[in-house]
Amino acid sequence: MHLEEKTIASEKTYQGKIFYVTKDTAQLENGNLVQRDVVHHSGGVCVVPLTRENTVLMVRQFRYPMQQVTLEIPAGKLEAGESPEECGLRELKEEVGRTCETYQSLGKMFPTPAYDTEVIHMFLAQDLSKPQAQNLDDGEFLDITELPLKDAVQMVLRGEILDAKTQTTLLKIWALQSGVS
Amino acid sequence: MHLEEKTIASEKTYQGKIFYVTKDTAQLENGNLVQRDVVHHSGGVCVVPLTRENTVLMVRQFRYPMQQVTLEIPAGKLEAGESPEECGLRELKEEVGRTCETYQSLGKMFPTPAYDTEVIHMFLAQDLSKPQAQNLDDGEFLDITELPLKDAVQMVLRGEILDAKTQTTLLKIWALQSGVS
Repeated sequence: MHLEEKTIASEKTYQGKIFYVTKDTAQLENGNLVQRDVVHHSGGVCVVPLTRENTVLMVRQFRYPMQQVTLEIPAGKLEAGESPEECGLRELKEEVGRTCETYQSLGKMFPTPAYDTEVIHMFLAQDLSKPQAQNLDDGEFLDITELPLKDAVQMVLRGEILDAKTQTTLLKIWALQSGVS
Repeated sequence: MHLEEKTIASEKTYQGKIFYVTKDTAQLENGNLVQRDVVHHSGGVCVVPLTRENTVLMVRQFRYPMQQVTLEIPAGKLEAGESPEECGLRELKEEVGRTCETYQSLGKMFPTPAYDTEVIHMFLAQDLSKPQAQNLDDGEFLDITELPLKDAVQMVLRGEILDAKTQTTLLKIWALQSGVS
């Protein structure tokens, strides 16, 4: 089929804690063989906690690969047997201590489709409960911040929010609230 | 420092063609040690080719990790000694056969900050030349598509465009053209 690449061989080359890596041989549409290294990840979920006052709850955390603190919406990794919907509600509770009465999908995102299988499922949580205690994973430290949606969108446009899922979800909500014409 | 994680040890566990992997030991702010597996990538660049008619040139290509064809803006990997600006102009020429007279940054994105060092530099290219021949990398096949910006943004909002850098850049350009208030 035009464009399609067929897997000829696949060998696991590294098993990490949250991903594993394979070195594959793929056949292109012209018959040539190429090496494709692939990071395999179970998938992620992110959730925008939007308050009745149109503010967003975000988290500041140290991102080890980037060697810096980033400002992001709550997010996490899909656990075995967990649906994306359940994962988003769990992260909402664990990271910002909230439950919600209104919850909707904002679609999916492929953060790195060239070499990583990860899919991120995006959700919008509204009609939030009062804050309860955070319940973080072992080895997870983060600070909660609350910002007007408008200010957060301006930070995306000015390049001050760098995380991809946070950029897309905030712009998407803003576009949906504004009405695209 | 609050939130910071300090590298105690780092071991290269896999060397691929476009990334390598290390297994690190990091010390958290409470003194505990954790394993951090990290994908190391040289960085990427994407460029939105926007015509005088406000249409966007995009590419359809098979993304092996996703096992599907995706619709994305032109993009590629930073080569050694190349600046992000140069890389974007090179990909514009290679993938859609254009040069441009107006070129500006749309900021940066961290697609997977939890376990991957990749930074994607985003650009907007305008005042495009007439189409010239594509000049693709070995093993690269893609089809060019032209869409009105408005339609492309609607596809992002409807969840029909899944690539993260394409979602963010299209929404960002639309927000900048609309004026955020």
